[in-house]
Amino acid sequence: MNSTHLLLKALKGEEVERPPVWMMRQAGRYLPEYMVLRRKYDFFTRVQTPELACEITLQPIDIIGSDAAILFSDILVIPQAMGLEVQMVESKGPFLPRTTTTKSEIEALNATTADDHLQYVYDAISLTKKELNNRVPLIGFAGAPFTILCYMVEGKGSKAFDKAKQFCFSEPKLAQSLLQKITDVTIAYLKRQVQAGVDCVQVFDSWSGLLSKADFEIFAKPYLVQISDALSPLAPVILFPKGSWYALEDLSTSSASGLGVDWCLTPKQARTLTNNNITLQGNFDPNHLLKPIHEIQKEVKEMIDAFGPQKYIVNLGHGILPNIPVEHAKAFVDAVKNYSNL
Amino acid sequence: MNSTHLLLKALKGEEVERPPVWMMRQAGRYLPEYMVLRRKYDFFTRVQTPELACEITLQPIDIIGSDAAILFSDILVIPQAMGLEVQMVESKGPFLPRTTTTKSEIEALNATTADDHLQYVYDAISLTKKELNNRVPLIGFAGAPFTILCYMVEGKGSKAFDKAKQFCFSEPKLAQSLLQKITDVTIAYLKRQVQAGVDCVQVFDSWSGLLSKADFEIFAKPYLVQISDALSPLAPVILFPKGSWYALEDLSTSSASGLGVDWCLTPKQARTLTNNNITLQGNFDPNHLLKPIHEIQKEVKEMIDAFGPQKYIVNLGHGILPNIPVEHAKAFVDAVKNYSNL
Repeated sequence: MNSTHLLLKALKGEEVERPPVWMMRQAGRYLPEYMVLRRKYDFFTRVQTPELACEITLQPIDIIGSDAAILFSDILVIPQAMGLEVQMVESKGPFLPRTTTTKSEIEALNATTADDHLQYVYDAISLTKKELNNRVPLIGFAGAPFTILCYMVEGKGSKAFDKAKQFCFSEPKLAQSLLQKITDVTIAYLKRQVQAGVDCVQVFDSWSGLLSKADFEIFAKPYLVQISDALSPLAPVILFPKGSWYALEDLSTSSASGLGVDWCLTPKQARTLTNNNITLQGNFDPNHLLKPIHEIQKEVKEMIDAFGPQKYIVNLGHGILPNIPVEHAKAFVDAVKNYSNL
Repeated sequence: MNSTHLLLKALKGEEVERPPVWMMRQAGRYLPEYMVLRRKYDFFTRVQTPELACEITLQPIDIIGSDAAILFSDILVIPQAMGLEVQMVESKGPFLPRTTTTKSEIEALNATTADDHLQYVYDAISLTKKELNNRVPLIGFAGAPFTILCYMVEGKGSKAFDKAKQFCFSEPKLAQSLLQKITDVTIAYLKRQVQAGVDCVQVFDSWSGLLSKADFEIFAKPYLVQISDALSPLAPVILFPKGSWYALEDLSTSSASGLGVDWCLTPKQARTLTNNNITLQGNFDPNHLLKPIHEIQKEVKEMIDAFGPQKYIVNLGHGILPNIPVEHAKAFVDAVKNYSNL
């Protein structure tokens, strides 16, 4: 691990000449090079073939020049490894034909050797680290337990995940046993990602913002904290509880090294809530990348000014969208690299 | 207008013996009596037939005992009145075959006489007021301009309304001309609702929470404020910019009499943000209504204690869900009525 990388310095709170930049879903559909592979191989073939996952992971490094690579994979490899079928219906999203809501369904899940089923991920990491040749650090990731539960209970994407929330509220003990199983597998999985070579890990709680603060503290936070506590001795951890602005203050004193934030709070609010004592990552609205390039440049500068260039990782507040022109994505990255000249 | 009604007193900031209670979508699918009519008449027949709209509006007053009635209607009657086709695909949501994104499409919208096309709403209000016989006040409503734009641009429901937001960000002048047209129609429409007899109006900005604070101030707030300023001399106005907690402080000094809040901020945070100077409405997570009745009672009491019983309207933070047992909805209402004894 080359600790001179901007991302790792920013996560340690060390001084940097400019903040690092990467984008969630940077290895994705806005890249024509990705679309070529997407037309040739189905989703899980791309995820499960180390050579393909590696090639896709490297694309944004070569094409738009991100300061970090994030492994091409999916958060739903965890329920898959626990024994559930997960289908990825192109342009519709994930579908789990069998949901998990009863005691016996939860007990039937494989929680002890699930991480062994994800060897293709560790192989993709080893290969990617070799190909990266230390140009930029590699980020590993997993979905947070509450978000994984959402898909396991609901069986597919949803606007409000009402079924999943109702399961938590009406069967809290079952929900907690499911969350704990997911947590155990996720910790084992992320540890093996670190052993395979990732330089830091991000935990995506994409749906935690659907919970009230009180419910977040029951169904999301304890599991995020367990993962962070288990992983942070091995590698820096970034937690991204999307939408859960109310949790930032608490999490700023956790073992995590960084917190992701979306555009629904201002950089100033994010700094105030976290008492300026943790590295923050975010929070450009991906839809702003459709603006003219000179406006993107202006807004990136304003965003860095507002967060401050230290203890800060430039990112979007959510994944980049398929219809963003590549030159706009590149302009975003370049604006960060030229920050001091803007 | 009987100013002794709890809802109207709470909106004026007058002292009440207990807070009033109603529920968003209280005239809806969780009621077997509603389902009987739903099987017999399609959605827009129910909306456009004053006798049916009146009957549906009254159902929750008789069955669960809400302190206020809200007219059974839909926010998308506005684009319909402006000349667009709106289909309601049962259990899938709205669909607009023709979207509105170009200058000529915006110019083609009827903004001058659209409110005349909504006579069936005013007739439903007159009839409902007569049938209510002053038992409880009647709430009129409209969608906020940004939320209506979301549907007009996207053509259907969406998780993130990316197309609508991209339209705003890449064509801000066109977006603003569309928002202004919707605002003009909405003001005329709500004024006629008041003339027809509603006692107060609520403006639903269901999707404003998808915007950053800066974007909210461009694409949502000015239109909410115009509507509030135009209506508040005639009737109390409740603004509900769902998810836009960052806007509460600003809006607490607007001409509105009340602000809706969802469960993503605590009662205490809501009171602090609004400096305790406006009536607040909310914020029970509708999914909590699946909990056992004794827990609903306990949580309602805690919620009222936390908001304080004055300047407060008990409500959900979003519409009641179809699978909530009627006795749980009734327990929610009764818990408010028995607040001082709980």
